[in-house]
Amino acid sequence: MNKKVITFGEILLRLTPADNFSFEQAPACEKSFGGSEANVAVALAGYGMNSVYVSKLPDNIIGQAALNALRRYGVDTSFIARGGSRVGMYVLEKGFSPCSAVCTYDRADSAMSQACPKDFNWRKIFDRADWFHFSGITPALSPTLARICLSACKAAKEHGLTVSCDVNYRSKLWDMEKASAVMRQLCRYVDVLIVNEEEAKVLGADMTEEDPVSGFHRQIEFLQKNYPCSVIAAVARLNDNTAAQAVIWDGTIRYSQVYPLHTVDPVGAGDAFCAALIYGIIHRMHTDELINFAAAACALKHGIKGDFNLASVDTVRQLMKNNGHTGVQR
Amino acid sequence: MNKKVITFGEILLRLTPADNFSFEQAPACEKSFGGSEANVAVALAGYGMNSVYVSKLPDNIIGQAALNALRRYGVDTSFIARGGSRVGMYVLEKGFSPCSAVCTYDRADSAMSQACPKDFNWRKIFDRADWFHFSGITPALSPTLARICLSACKAAKEHGLTVSCDVNYRSKLWDMEKASAVMRQLCRYVDVLIVNEEEAKVLGADMTEEDPVSGFHRQIEFLQKNYPCSVIAAVARLNDNTAAQAVIWDGTIRYSQVYPLHTVDPVGAGDAFCAALIYGIIHRMHTDELINFAAAACALKHGIKGDFNLASVDTVRQLMKNNGHTGVQR
Amino acid sequence: MNKKVITFGEILLRLTPADNFSFEQAPACEKSFGGSEANVAVALAGYGMNSVYVSKLPDNIIGQAALNALRRYGVDTSFIARGGSRVGMYVLEKGFSPCSAVCTYDRADSAMSQACPKDFNWRKIFDRADWFHFSGITPALSPTLARICLSACKAAKEHGLTVSCDVNYRSKLWDMEKASAVMRQLCRYVDVLIVNEEEAKVLGADMTEEDPVSGFHRQIEFLQKNYPCSVIAAVARLNDNTAAQAVIWDGTIRYSQVYPLHTVDPVGAGDAFCAALIYGIIHRMHTDELINFAAAACALKHGIKGDFNLASVDTVRQLMKNNGHTGVQR
Amino acid sequence: MNKKVITFGEILLRLTPADNFSFEQAPACEKSFGGSEANVAVALAGYGMNSVYVSKLPDNIIGQAALNALRRYGVDTSFIARGGSRVGMYVLEKGFSPCSAVCTYDRADSAMSQACPKDFNWRKIFDRADWFHFSGITPALSPTLARICLSACKAAKEHGLTVSCDVNYRSKLWDMEKASAVMRQLCRYVDVLIVNEEEAKVLGADMTEEDPVSGFHRQIEFLQKNYPCSVIAAVARLNDNTAAQAVIWDGTIRYSQVYPLHTVDPVGAGDAFCAALIYGIIHRMHTDELINFAAAACALKHGIKGDFNLASVDTVRQLMKNNGHTGVQR
Amino acid sequence: MNKKVITFGEILLRLTPADNFSFEQAPACEKSFGGSEANVAVALAGYGMNSVYVSKLPDNIIGQAALNALRRYGVDTSFIARGGSRVGMYVLEKGFSPCSAVCTYDRADSAMSQACPKDFNWRKIFDRADWFHFSGITPALSPTLARICLSACKAAKEHGLTVSCDVNYRSKLWDMEKASAVMRQLCRYVDVLIVNEEEAKVLGADMTEEDPVSGFHRQIEFLQKNYPCSVIAAVARLNDNTAAQAVIWDGTIRYSQVYPLHTVDPVGAGDAFCAALIYGIIHRMHTDELINFAAAACALKHGIKGDFNLASVDTVRQLMKNNGHTGVQR
Amino acid sequence: MNKKVITFGEILLRLTPADNFSFEQAPACEKSFGGSEANVAVALAGYGMNSVYVSKLPDNIIGQAALNALRRYGVDTSFIARGGSRVGMYVLEKGFSPCSAVCTYDRADSAMSQACPKDFNWRKIFDRADWFHFSGITPALSPTLARICLSACKAAKEHGLTVSCDVNYRSKLWDMEKASAVMRQLCRYVDVLIVNEEEAKVLGADMTEEDPVSGFHRQIEFLQKNYPCSVIAAVARLNDNTAAQAVIWDGTIRYSQVYPLHTVDPVGAGDAFCAALIYGIIHRMHTDELINFAAAACALKHGIKGDFNLASVDTVRQLMKNNGHTGVQR
Repeated sequence: MNKKVITFGEILLRLTPADNFSFEQAPACEKSFGGSEANVAVALAGYGMNSVYVSKLPDNIIGQAALNALRRYGVDTSFIARGGSRVGMYVLEKGFSPCSAVCTYDRADSAMSQACPKDFNWRKIFDRADWFHFSGITPALSPTLARICLSACKAAKEHGLTVSCDVNYRSKLWDMEKASAVMRQLCRYVDVLIVNEEEAKVLGADMTEEDPVSGFHRQIEFLQKNYPCSVIAAVARLNDNTAAQAVIWDGTIRYSQVYPLHTVDPVGAGDAFCAALIYGIIHRMHTDELINFAAAACALKHGIKGDFNLASVDTVRQLMKNNGHTGVQR
Repeated sequence: MNKKVITFGEILLRLTPADNFSFEQAPACEKSFGGSEANVAVALAGYGMNSVYVSKLPDNIIGQAALNALRRYGVDTSFIARGGSRVGMYVLEKGFSPCSAVCTYDRADSAMSQACPKDFNWRKIFDRADWFHFSGITPALSPTLARICLSACKAAKEHGLTVSCDVNYRSKLWDMEKASAVMRQLCRYVDVLIVNEEEAKVLGADMTEEDPVSGFHRQIEFLQKNYPCSVIAAVARLNDNTAAQAVIWDGTIRYSQVYPLHTVDPVGAGDAFCAALIYGIIHRMHTDELINFAAAACALKHGIKGDFNLASVDTVRQLMKNNGHTGVQR
Repeated sequence: MNKKVITFGEILLRLTPADNFSFEQAPACEKSFGGSEANVAVALAGYGMNSVYVSKLPDNIIGQAALNALRRYGVDTSFIARGGSRVGMYVLEKGFSPCSAVCTYDRADSAMSQACPKDFNWRKIFDRADWFHFSGITPALSPTLARICLSACKAAKEHGLTVSCDVNYRSKLWDMEKASAVMRQLCRYVDVLIVNEEEAKVLGADMTEEDPVSGFHRQIEFLQKNYPCSVIAAVARLNDNTAAQAVIWDGTIRYSQVYPLHTVDPVGAGDAFCAALIYGIIHRMHTDELINFAAAACALKHGIKGDFNLASVDTVRQLMKNNGHTGVQR
Repeated sequence: MNKKVITFGEILLRLTPADNFSFEQAPACEKSFGGSEANVAVALAGYGMNSVYVSKLPDNIIGQAALNALRRYGVDTSFIARGGSRVGMYVLEKGFSPCSAVCTYDRADSAMSQACPKDFNWRKIFDRADWFHFSGITPALSPTLARICLSACKAAKEHGLTVSCDVNYRSKLWDMEKASAVMRQLCRYVDVLIVNEEEAKVLGADMTEEDPVSGFHRQIEFLQKNYPCSVIAAVARLNDNTAAQAVIWDGTIRYSQVYPLHTVDPVGAGDAFCAALIYGIIHRMHTDELINFAAAACALKHGIKGDFNLASVDTVRQLMKNNGHTGVQR
Repeated sequence: MNKKVITFGEILLRLTPADNFSFEQAPACEKSFGGSEANVAVALAGYGMNSVYVSKLPDNIIGQAALNALRRYGVDTSFIARGGSRVGMYVLEKGFSPCSAVCTYDRADSAMSQACPKDFNWRKIFDRADWFHFSGITPALSPTLARICLSACKAAKEHGLTVSCDVNYRSKLWDMEKASAVMRQLCRYVDVLIVNEEEAKVLGADMTEEDPVSGFHRQIEFLQKNYPCSVIAAVARLNDNTAAQAVIWDGTIRYSQVYPLHTVDPVGAGDAFCAALIYGIIHRMHTDELINFAAAACALKHGIKGDFNLASVDTVRQLMKNNGHTGVQR
Repeated sequence: MNKKVITFGEILLRLTPADNFSFEQAPACEKSFGGSEANVAVALAGYGMNSVYVSKLPDNIIGQAALNALRRYGVDTSFIARGGSRVGMYVLEKGFSPCSAVCTYDRADSAMSQACPKDFNWRKIFDRADWFHFSGITPALSPTLARICLSACKAAKEHGLTVSCDVNYRSKLWDMEKASAVMRQLCRYVDVLIVNEEEAKVLGADMTEEDPVSGFHRQIEFLQKNYPCSVIAAVARLNDNTAAQAVIWDGTIRYSQVYPLHTVDPVGAGDAFCAALIYGIIHRMHTDELINFAAAACALKHGIKGDFNLASVDTVRQLMKNNGHTGVQR
């Protein structure tokens, strides 16, 4: 069952100051690439899916390096448009408790943010495809991209694909008002919705004034009533970022186990969750297995450097079984 | 309010074995510079103060590199005397629990330890200055430096500066007897005294045979009676070095919150505390804000590589507000 | 009392992906060498013993580098046979909780696994020697090596040496049946037996169906009855690998303190335990001191990169005294 | 014209001591992958060809890393068989004049050397393919592989492919007698033969006792008479490895220009030559253009780290035009 | 004679792939900063001048790191405006013969390119200053900056400063027509003109159809007639970039010696030439000394990593004396 | 013929700025150890000699690391006295043409410079030894060491050892007058004298005002008349440090071939020459073979990082045979 999953978004050059220095101190930065949907695409390819990433990259050494980073992990890059001026970039300073990790973005005017409808031939892209995934970052990049996302969603439904969306609200890219206008429209085409308590406001589910637990339950209630989705899921870091737990609604609400974390790299854990969720639904995992698989994948990502979750299905399953570490595997 | 603060001490070449190796194993060492007062000077410059560091450095590539390390962070180095034969050095092996971090010094005969009175023109140095800071390491370097410190203290008071001193007793540099003789004399000119329970003995406040808490209170009582200082402060690591808390007396005794720690680099945390204390007093923070600002700065330093505390005022304030980590800042 | 200890085993090239990357991601791997008995030999040389390591290495740059790694730490390498085709190798991916560390071996057809009896002249090797140590890995490498081990054990007893064996069962090298047949024979010559609860089954002590504590006590009872050993010892990691504790029987059963751990490198901790045990017995430590010395050495190894335990006797003793970390040693 | 080229060979893990150290000295080794035919495959993919690499790799992290290294550069890896025990490896010590670069191999018993006929379905592999390339290393790995090569050659001709072979004689893998027996048979199916003066002896063209120039001309004469090939080509380093020049026969003999070299990495230059030759023939370059294109590609490879030639067609053409360096391109 | 020199331009983040890899291959990039005028400013500060660099940098970690890079080497950064969105960036792939070094720029929309007149208070900046230097890159960044440059030139002349300009034509920033219109106007205020044969066309001196030598002489003739400058100078790399030679006209034409080169870093050599020229003129070197000093500084820069020339006056003078290398200085 | 050679001198910590940076720029320094006689000792151990290095090192981590660096390469360190305060150190900035390599020393007050006679028991050291080697650096370290050298020389002759001395005059350690007084006395015990034209003045052979060639011949004449040595040898770098040639007198004067150089590390080449000379004389090479062996060893050292010559006898002989490079050895 080698299903074809299409992801659509922007991939950024990531500079990570080497050796735990701050950017100011660092004599060198580790070079990698990442972005919410690209991270999902890489994880799915690693799980053995036919993973196709759609984006736009300039025809220079930075764009080529981004494309190669995806190919390396088995992602099909044949639908990436080439052109435009630059690859967006961000600096990740890891930070250590009590310091937070800090992302400094320089992504304006990237090739992807300047993409236009003719860069993407959705009919060809969706041919024989099974699933379409995007996050709220993609429509936030430009009004044109918001329109392209809408076309893509419509085309996906026409081709019979399942559509998933990680709301992923980023206040640096757009304000709540603009996000709401766009996302509410897009989410009318979404089957699987990944959205945390804070982000649910974007979709109108702002009822957190009450106690958090029942608040989130009421949000889910609100979302399932107002949107046509059949699955709603979220993951959260607990206990000063030393553990992760996920929740899913697909008729009833189920919680995953609490998985311990040791954070080597905090970025991309939500994307690891989305990818595992997609994989689990495609492979018809039952609800408990599904939410634990997705939560365990999210937990594992914290121990892997870079944006990409490179843990295999076997490794995720092993964590689910062991409920934690097992020392040295010889 | 861009006050001018003078710090006076020795800056050392620091070799830190790269990649968590021990010195013996390490194929390479990270090169940096640090020293108690230099660390204070860098933190103050980073806080936007007019920070002037006074010392002596040889006129070779190692001395120049030390000077550049200070300039990089905005410290005024125009009063650093040039001459003498060598820059002192130390190796820092970080260690991991249950191993301690270990400093191995090779600082004898440094340019600063051989400085003489004519290297420093205190009248020019203190012109339009507001504050003078030194630690007990400076007078420990040589009898001449002890005399120079005394002259500097007297000149500072004549110029109307506030004087602060971090007792910083180092048994490898001098014994308790010599330290007591010198420090008791110097502390007669000190307004702001940073001294922990152990070091208070240097100043005659040796009453720890009783229970620690009341012992320290009695030490403060002793110090305020026997020395003219108006502020006494200290910071301590708690719970196997996983948290920090500070205490201050400026009329009454106040404790800071307990801040969690993740130690990337254990050196310079006390100096970060001193710098934040100086900054807070200059900016007329009220006592509770002051001691929390200083404790938070100390806690943050543990997550920053090298001797220098490079966390900004904003970062310190954010930690005070958050009382801990906040995951990824995007 | 500079006793001569002979260790016999295989040393492997170890590739550790640099900078906490996985092997797949890593642009470079740290190069080191290690192996159960070699690790014991290095620790003993560091403790000041006359430590002689016996093995076989090919006459190429990889074999020479392995030999130099031992010489660097003072091990006598004059009885290492040269010849054969290759040095076995393993990749260590450190892993982070909740990920386990993973060893990937490529050790088939190593020079040592192809060694033959004439490579080792036990009469010369054991001349004026006091102790012979090997682990269950050595006889697992080939049937010939199993026979050589038997000859060595017999020769050791003839020369009046104390013999120690770390059972170290590795299911990738041989199955339980073969291991049992060989190890039960070899252990008839062993005075000091290092064996954990799981491995005790190799020697026929399979009684863990009951509660673990009494199960292990019954195992020890079984072993002391069925084998001529005078000391049985084991060490275990507790609390999700954040602490270590050891147990010894040398007439009565004694437990060590629980030592906290911060794992920089998880490999070689058992070997550090063996070496410290040998050192302690040779130096006639009383039982409590002995088992704490060995447990503390094991705990310290977790903070040292590479296979080798480079902590000195002083450092181990300091940990025993402090029962944990002491911050920065200046 | 996106022709499909099949390459067949072994890819090795390459360890290159970092920072110009020797292996013995090096604390770390750069990790890369390479092998004669894999190098050709990567270069062809970089030239935009549909490049398919056929080999066998074990199903472990080392095998996967090798496969990812190929995917990264756009090589189709879908026909790589998975299984067997290990990836062969070699250490490359770069060396500096007057030192030579030294390769130390540890490749026995690799997965590829133990491959069997059913690992490769030539009918599927050659479907819609245009070209088949292998080097003399592949049949040297095992008698079985020699037979597989013969089957592949026959199948290639049946499918109408052009066949190229780089004789690449390696005395460490087989002796002249065995090599001759196998290669003479295989070369009956070869259209494009890459063979230098020394290697021509393998094919029976041993006539170098005379003056070298006419000797090589007579070798070509011999080869074209005794083998059905239509192109014979070779490249050589001149002037203490500071320049490269190539020669081709495709009816008449033509020499390329002499291209200057600065050797950052000496391995894979011959493979770069083969790949460029294949590209040029497929693109119907005229003889002069062809041999200069191939020689320039070979020259450029010397400036690129690792086994793979990553210089693009544009870069090669630019070198052909400039006949040397042009300083900084802004 | 500690003269005050003002430089005005843009400083970029420079990413240099580490360890001689191409950008695509590189796991990490060295992080540094550079830009034509910033390079001049750093060199002048290193020569002991009062060097003031004027630019605009965003108020984020990248802007701060750029500013610190300048402070480290003693440049006065107090007139750098803070604001705008990003620091421009470029990737430098060093290249090896026969490969060229390649700069890939991503500098659009930088803070400096969006600077406006009120960011720079020329009256304050030029107070007590002696010299003003800029290159043709600054006015190329935006039409506004071209106007600001014109204002700066006029203000500089009003304050009695000497004005120098390095024409530095970059076709990626503006075309010949626009450059000519702007530069011809600006050069009416320039006293010291650095311009090579190719760039002289920007100023109307296009007469290279004849033989190069007399062509350049005629260019100088043209320039001195059409512009009010009193000094014209240029430097060129010779013999495949293995040597450098400079020429100057300050009444008569003089050539420097030919200095050999070993290129560790090819960027910033022209800026090193400008800085040395400015230093030499300020220190009233006679013409022969001046042009040799500037050429030697340019030659030395090739051996120094990064954009900045960190060679001291003594080192430059020593090279002038030695006319080449002298082995190991002990 | 495994002869025992005693070398006596000081070993220093060497810091080499990593990645071709200057010390000022470098974020890290490679850590190694070296010193004239230690370099000879390591080379001799690598040639298979019984090589004993005598020195004094402090009992701290730096001293231990120095000792381990020697053990790693097979040097017998059992006669190294432990004690004193520090290990001397030097920084090596490699430099690139036209820059020179620069050594910056910080070696005053090292443990070795403060050694006293009772640190070395020459009777035990020279027991069954064959050769004693030292350089002029050892007696330059202190008047006490000059006296110890004299005692050692006398004891060496009493025990029937051959004595060799590399004059190695260092003006930073002592002036010509002091050096002459000491060295002329010591050289009365020297059998094999390594001294270049410049250094010969120390021994009174100052006759270079004439043409260099005949001057050096006259120096040799002078030295053989005034000192009891039977061999005099020297090596020189030619052609801007791109080649090396050696000369020897052992009755008649013979020159070596000219060996080409590529300098990766310029330090220790003279010591490599001394070691090869000692090896060659012990192995009774005839004069031509001897001087070529020593010159080739010196040439090879330039391509090896660090102070130590790690090239084997085979590698040296291969260079002698090949008279230059041979490309890739597979």
